[in-house]
Amino acid sequence: MPTDNPVLAYIAAHEPRFLDELKAFLRIPSISTESRHVADLWRAAEFIAADLRRMGMRQVEVLPTAGHPAVYAEWLGAPGQPTVLIYGHYDVQPVDPENLWTTPPFEPTERDGYLYARGASDDKGQVHLHLKAAEAHLRSTGKLPVNLKLIVEGEEEVGSEHLTALIQAERERLKADVVVVSDTGMFARGQPAICYGLRGLGYWQIDLQGASSDLHSGVYGGAVANPIEVLSHLLASLKDDQGRILVPGFYDDVREITPAERSELAHLPHDDAAMKRELGVSELFGEVGYSTLERRWCRPTLEPNGIWGGFTGEGSKTVLPARASAKLSSRLVPDQDPVHIGDLVEAHLRRVCPKTMSLSFTRLGEAKPAMTPLDHPAVRAAARALEQAFGVKPLYQREGGTIPVVATFAEELGAPSVLLGFGLNDDHLHAPNERFLLENYFGGIRTIALLWEEIAKG
Amino acid sequence: MPTDNPVLAYIAAHEPRFLDELKAFLRIPSISTESRHVADLWRAAEFIAADLRRMGMRQVEVLPTAGHPAVYAEWLGAPGQPTVLIYGHYDVQPVDPENLWTTPPFEPTERDGYLYARGASDDKGQVHLHLKAAEAHLRSTGKLPVNLKLIVEGEEEVGSEHLTALIQAERERLKADVVVVSDTGMFARGQPAICYGLRGLGYWQIDLQGASSDLHSGVYGGAVANPIEVLSHLLASLKDDQGRILVPGFYDDVREITPAERSELAHLPHDDAAMKRELGVSELFGEVGYSTLERRWCRPTLEPNGIWGGFTGEGSKTVLPARASAKLSSRLVPDQDPVHIGDLVEAHLRRVCPKTMSLSFTRLGEAKPAMTPLDHPAVRAAARALEQAFGVKPLYQREGGTIPVVATFAEELGAPSVLLGFGLNDDHLHAPNERFLLENYFGGIRTIALLWEEIAKG
Repeated sequence: MPTDNPVLAYIAAHEPRFLDELKAFLRIPSISTESRHVADLWRAAEFIAADLRRMGMRQVEVLPTAGHPAVYAEWLGAPGQPTVLIYGHYDVQPVDPENLWTTPPFEPTERDGYLYARGASDDKGQVHLHLKAAEAHLRSTGKLPVNLKLIVEGEEEVGSEHLTALIQAERERLKADVVVVSDTGMFARGQPAICYGLRGLGYWQIDLQGASSDLHSGVYGGAVANPIEVLSHLLASLKDDQGRILVPGFYDDVREITPAERSELAHLPHDDAAMKRELGVSELFGEVGYSTLERRWCRPTLEPNGIWGGFTGEGSKTVLPARASAKLSSRLVPDQDPVHIGDLVEAHLRRVCPKTMSLSFTRLGEAKPAMTPLDHPAVRAAARALEQAFGVKPLYQREGGTIPVVATFAEELGAPSVLLGFGLNDDHLHAPNERFLLENYFGGIRTIALLWEEIAKG
Repeated sequence: MPTDNPVLAYIAAHEPRFLDELKAFLRIPSISTESRHVADLWRAAEFIAADLRRMGMRQVEVLPTAGHPAVYAEWLGAPGQPTVLIYGHYDVQPVDPENLWTTPPFEPTERDGYLYARGASDDKGQVHLHLKAAEAHLRSTGKLPVNLKLIVEGEEEVGSEHLTALIQAERERLKADVVVVSDTGMFARGQPAICYGLRGLGYWQIDLQGASSDLHSGVYGGAVANPIEVLSHLLASLKDDQGRILVPGFYDDVREITPAERSELAHLPHDDAAMKRELGVSELFGEVGYSTLERRWCRPTLEPNGIWGGFTGEGSKTVLPARASAKLSSRLVPDQDPVHIGDLVEAHLRRVCPKTMSLSFTRLGEAKPAMTPLDHPAVRAAARALEQAFGVKPLYQREGGTIPVVATFAEELGAPSVLLGFGLNDDHLHAPNERFLLENYFGGIRTIALLWEEIAKG
């Protein structure tokens, strides 16, 4: 690491304070799916805005939306240089089941080189490292190597419902040559990666209603349809035992993996046995005919995320329930469209559902899949920055997750996104004991600081 | 109604007080499935014991068990007369979903001739009418027409786990010529019935575990089995779309309905259209080839009573869950054995369950089905008592529900049970807004008071 770089020297000197600030950020329970946390979302947005103002960013604003607010800031003092737009999100997933957390989700705790907290990796920790990279430049040299804009939203975990309208309304102000997003992961510890593909998402809820109220299973059992049973049949009808989705038309728009990409993926250092150990499963499962990485990155899914109905308490209750529900979602790949896939899934369910039940199908979120061109100058700059910060050449990979805004930036701003993430697969995203490797947090700050220098070099 | 009967005159004169006492009994939340209600179970038992002591029953005792206590009492002052054993239960079902109750479940409320409360019909109201029949005899004539014993348990809704051991331990004291149980229903309002068949019960819980913790559905979706999906496939594998249960061997021991019984059932005044209206369903559903009453009374069931797993809150959470669970039960008919059926169900599930999941199968309750001989003198006495009390000849029917102890009394005491119930099908048993028709409560007190006189006549 070149210690004659004043920006890197500033970062090295301030690591403990950076970490303290990150912990303060993580203590705010900014859960966007739960309406009782509305004020916490505002607190998280104001936390970011205050930091941006302190470090000398300009035009810092908390922008209201019809949902949770977004934070905007800019620094445009590098005429002739490219403009980089940072995107991230400060909202986090719910914490249930909370009893499975070793330490409370909103009391950030260091253990074994990791920082444990909800949002540590997804995405507050990765937003924070951009803030600290900007601070390091502005405080050590009084300027940034590129023009910088930043937008941090509060609705990523609920499908970024109002972000598209905001981007459309602020199109002029957000204009940029490239978007940089840190909301993905490294390939493995010590092995940085640049992500060039993201899956999209459709998220739905099924509610079945049979009788108008719960019934006694002895008095009526055998004569009235059971909504849990029907729901099981509906869910079972979605996929065969080879992992192939059975919704008619589901695969029609799937871009098949090319032989070239297939060959590259096959050379990535992935190990099924290690993954099984890490997840605690005896066997993996997925669509026959594709490798594990292909199934995770390049193939669509359709699976339940939650189910409930009838008696779920201690002991036994002999009820024939009136209602049963499930949450269901699909990870989509180019060129699938989430609205069209929702139509296909709904039509399939209505075709399969017997007349004994009334079925309600609710759309809870949609996001398009995205791909980034690998030959963009900012992608090459990112590769050089990663190699300097981590001492290892990055791999190029896709991600199975979804960043809805990437497709929106391409459509609305015409700007490609560089997906430069510092998470790890075992960060327990969306699950109890979410964590962020501290060496990746600090390495991420250095990478982003160097990225702007490399972009400026062209 | 003969008003020269001093017992009936006493009942008529004390109806308002009887009802007040029943309400006090129903205010005790004696939910046997929830461990936090242990003290309430004891309060309910002591409530009964205190009433029995006041009216002059002898040997009144609250008998501890390894679970919730039972109440015993006797009056043996009719030498040469038969001995009748009253059985009932003072425990009740849980009340969830509590928000669907019009008035709170443990604040008994009169509306439109019904008394609404958890346990009003199942079974505290029907236990109470035996108490008041005994009080009416003892207070008006100083004696009972027969020798009377009473056992009221507190574990019926959790499978009467410790009752068999209690009956075995107390076999001498419980010895009786006939058992009388009021825990079933009339055929319809104004149409009393004597029940000669009960279904048995097996109740089980399935727990599936996939990965060791919840996963991000984007990062891992497509590569790891989903326990909700597998659970759906397991539940869907239990039954075909004609309502036929697919567990190998399940029907092997089912006693087929005889042509004679089939003909009698066909003449009962049952109306599918009325049942659909009452339940709010557009279609009934059940095993093809059997009528609705046959499916409810004479055919076994296998269906889920509850299901849960993954994210069940507001909005969307893109989790690939680690666990999913279901409660499952079977209503059994002669000569099915609940332990053997549990073995068959478990074997089937283990055969169908893929190796991606670890499956745990927990047995939560078992009860044998039962049949009663129609030519027993006490059955004929019951018919006469019902006709006097309600002015209508009773019908003979089966019930779809389960009273586990009936099979136990037959095995341990050699005593048949007369099932003389005063509930109605729309009493909302095990569901919100449970209720008991007040005319049946008072008619029930008169019927039981007359039953003992009719048994004494032989």
